[in-house]
Amino acid sequence: MRRRDDRMKYTHIQESAYEANMQLPRLNLVLFTFGNVSVVDRDAGVFAIKPSGVPYEALSPAKMVVVDFDGNVLEGTLRPSSDTLTHAVLYKHWPLVGSIVHTHSTYATAWAQTQRDIPVYGTTHADHTTADIPCAAPMNDAMIKGNYEEETGRQIIQCLAEKGLDYREVEMMLVGNHAPFTWGKTPAKAVYNSAVLESIAQMAYLTEQIKPGSARLKEALIQKHFERKHGPDSYYGQA
Amino acid sequence: MRRRDDRMKYTHIQESAYEANMQLPRLNLVLFTFGNVSVVDRDAGVFAIKPSGVPYEALSPAKMVVVDFDGNVLEGTLRPSSDTLTHAVLYKHWPLVGSIVHTHSTYATAWAQTQRDIPVYGTTHADHTTADIPCAAPMNDAMIKGNYEEETGRQIIQCLAEKGLDYREVEMMLVGNHAPFTWGKTPAKAVYNSAVLESIAQMAYLTEQIKPGSARLKEALIQKHFERKHGPDSYYGQA
Amino acid sequence: MRRRDDRMKYTHIQESAYEANMQLPRLNLVLFTFGNVSVVDRDAGVFAIKPSGVPYEALSPAKMVVVDFDGNVLEGTLRPSSDTLTHAVLYKHWPLVGSIVHTHSTYATAWAQTQRDIPVYGTTHADHTTADIPCAAPMNDAMIKGNYEEETGRQIIQCLAEKGLDYREVEMMLVGNHAPFTWGKTPAKAVYNSAVLESIAQMAYLTEQIKPGSARLKEALIQKHFERKHGPDSYYGQA
Amino acid sequence: MRRRDDRMKYTHIQESAYEANMQLPRLNLVLFTFGNVSVVDRDAGVFAIKPSGVPYEALSPAKMVVVDFDGNVLEGTLRPSSDTLTHAVLYKHWPLVGSIVHTHSTYATAWAQTQRDIPVYGTTHADHTTADIPCAAPMNDAMIKGNYEEETGRQIIQCLAEKGLDYREVEMMLVGNHAPFTWGKTPAKAVYNSAVLESIAQMAYLTEQIKPGSARLKEALIQKHFERKHGPDSYYGQA
Repeated sequence: MRRRDDRMKYTHIQESAYEANMQLPRLNLVLFTFGNVSVVDRDAGVFAIKPSGVPYEALSPAKMVVVDFDGNVLEGTLRPSSDTLTHAVLYKHWPLVGSIVHTHSTYATAWAQTQRDIPVYGTTHADHTTADIPCAAPMNDAMIKGNYEEETGRQIIQCLAEKGLDYREVEMMLVGNHAPFTWGKTPAKAVYNSAVLESIAQMAYLTEQIKPGSARLKEALIQKHFERKHGPDSYYGQA
Repeated sequence: MRRRDDRMKYTHIQESAYEANMQLPRLNLVLFTFGNVSVVDRDAGVFAIKPSGVPYEALSPAKMVVVDFDGNVLEGTLRPSSDTLTHAVLYKHWPLVGSIVHTHSTYATAWAQTQRDIPVYGTTHADHTTADIPCAAPMNDAMIKGNYEEETGRQIIQCLAEKGLDYREVEMMLVGNHAPFTWGKTPAKAVYNSAVLESIAQMAYLTEQIKPGSARLKEALIQKHFERKHGPDSYYGQA
Repeated sequence: MRRRDDRMKYTHIQESAYEANMQLPRLNLVLFTFGNVSVVDRDAGVFAIKPSGVPYEALSPAKMVVVDFDGNVLEGTLRPSSDTLTHAVLYKHWPLVGSIVHTHSTYATAWAQTQRDIPVYGTTHADHTTADIPCAAPMNDAMIKGNYEEETGRQIIQCLAEKGLDYREVEMMLVGNHAPFTWGKTPAKAVYNSAVLESIAQMAYLTEQIKPGSARLKEALIQKHFERKHGPDSYYGQA
Repeated sequence: MRRRDDRMKYTHIQESAYEANMQLPRLNLVLFTFGNVSVVDRDAGVFAIKPSGVPYEALSPAKMVVVDFDGNVLEGTLRPSSDTLTHAVLYKHWPLVGSIVHTHSTYATAWAQTQRDIPVYGTTHADHTTADIPCAAPMNDAMIKGNYEEETGRQIIQCLAEKGLDYREVEMMLVGNHAPFTWGKTPAKAVYNSAVLESIAQMAYLTEQIKPGSARLKEALIQKHFERKHGPDSYYGQA
């Protein structure tokens, strides 16, 4: 049986998950309850996630539900997000991820509904990743009828693997016909990635409207911009 | 002649209708007075609806007009919404509807102006209904010149019937060349449906722009997402 | 020489013009100073208009410039809007107009840039006018090099005449390659018309994107919706 | 070694650069830190610029970094914007520029991603420049791998030269596959130009959507509108 101390030790991820969830409506990334953020405690092997279907204005740190990597509830009286097992699978397979965000933001979701990757058309995109934003194919019917949320996590992992991408470099993707998922080392970075993805998705849409058949960004610019912000010789931001 | 008690007993639907109407501008679903919400009292056989052409900022619960299912005014000194008879017909035919919303929200109205159903392209749509959002055909000239608002209600009912849809499952639709109507068991749900429809309409528009000829969501995913949120085995939200 | 009383008698149109101008940024119809409203005093044969190039946040009733129908400044130390003579011509020819609004609102201006009329695609449009929103052709070079602003007013008047439209029924239009002008009996109505035009312009754009070749609204619906709101048998709004 | 007085003399451009940078989020021109403004002191041969990667809400005048025209930091403990050398090159070659702005605003960046100039489709555009908004071609690989930011500045200068344009007349442009740069005599004008460019970019996009093959504004109107606002006979704004 858990002692009082056990419960107290989850407070930091509940507070952190609360703060991160509250950023989603402020950044215009969610309508009503269509999104959720989780924050992991690697030492404890648990994460805190938004309760299912509760409006953002009714949330509080104490309402964040704490679950283990199999989705068992350890703390909290509410039911966790229906996407909890997707988060769980990703935490299990990706040891360096600290936070995961799921939204139905307008432009990223529209791209997901087309099942297309978002081509890298400019430096705004290349500042964040050298790859086209990958879109995982929808699952087959057996997977959908099985453990759907767990399979969604596996679908994400497999899509990155097939494309030879590393989750530490590509921190955002689309699930075909569904919506975007992003992640990062910290909750701030994971939420940041959701807002960046929405902006990239809108710009790529407009680019194709303004000039159908626009060319992908040339390789030298992709590398240059990504290296300005990332890696050993980066010089963007404060050291 | 009505007694004072009669009047008092409408206060609850007037307050409820007032609150629901005030949500429309907050959710960016109306410009000026282009929308209205009604709330029914099934026992009394009456509903409260926004007065016609009165700006939202000038509304109050007492200004909500109470009418019976034939549109006769029972309470209130203002003229009810010009769409009142459309609401009345729907309440008469659909015994489990508690509230009806009409807006001219931008994307849903643009779809209505094309007379197209909105195809189900993703899980955001399937979370709310398994059907394409139906668009009722515009009326013939005799109906337009007859009791136009009543015919609008009949057009909505007939469109659902022709497509074999149930108003308890599909709570939103378009009236061709006009604009959307949504409904629900409660005012909160009916207003929620209007905002969801606008979001679905925008995403479907973008989906077709990003990839003309995008495929409809596969059947297994439609069923899965709808059942996650609705029906006996739903596991979205709090029990 | 004018007496103090003369000056005082313009205060009502200066205040009215100030209030109406301040509505434009609130309704998201202007960027910086790209718009202006004027209000006429028919008895005095003068109108008050926004000073040229002054930011909205720096305006006050006393800064509204009062001019006669030839554009001579009667009151105020600032230069009037560079579009003043366009307003003057319209007031001179249209005795029942009480206020005129000019903006560069995004969607209406984009339509003006295509030199296309905005087709009536739905009831939102027909609630306000039975006609397509007319777009006046750009002027010939001699007119542009002559008194450009006065010619803009004449271009508007001539466009309505050629299409057989009455300024009392059609209170909004586009000037080709330039931007929209709207008017009305009162400043509130003229500003309302600018916001309605922007909404109609956006919906018509989306309608054509969602379904190229969308049909114009059928005549019976055009008449029905216009008559609901206007004319002897109207039943929209409060009597 | 610099004396205290040296440091104090930069305060005016730091304050000015701070105020100008804070306008970018207010005008919806930046997401997170995707933009920067610099302000020059011509007598001192230095300019103040936003520090790299610092959120707008964490900025203060003292955090603005002061650098010379070779990008050497003279004042400030933070690293300057990674785009600093682009600003430096422009100040060096353009003696009458007082301030430079770089953003990744949505519509202007989408145009940049297509490598197309923005055609002058209307008077909103011609009010600001008679030229199509030029888009500089992306650099060759050697330039990208060399001093990338300095080359970006040279690319901008060369693009204007090739098109026979003067930086005192055309105060805004696009860098292909990257994003917009604007400038002006004052910080207020440079920021104003960024907002105007974004609006022009959105309207031009919509113009082509509403009518593919829309014609460029006729020459007489281009000249008329530019001369209304600029040059010896201008009559827009206050004298």
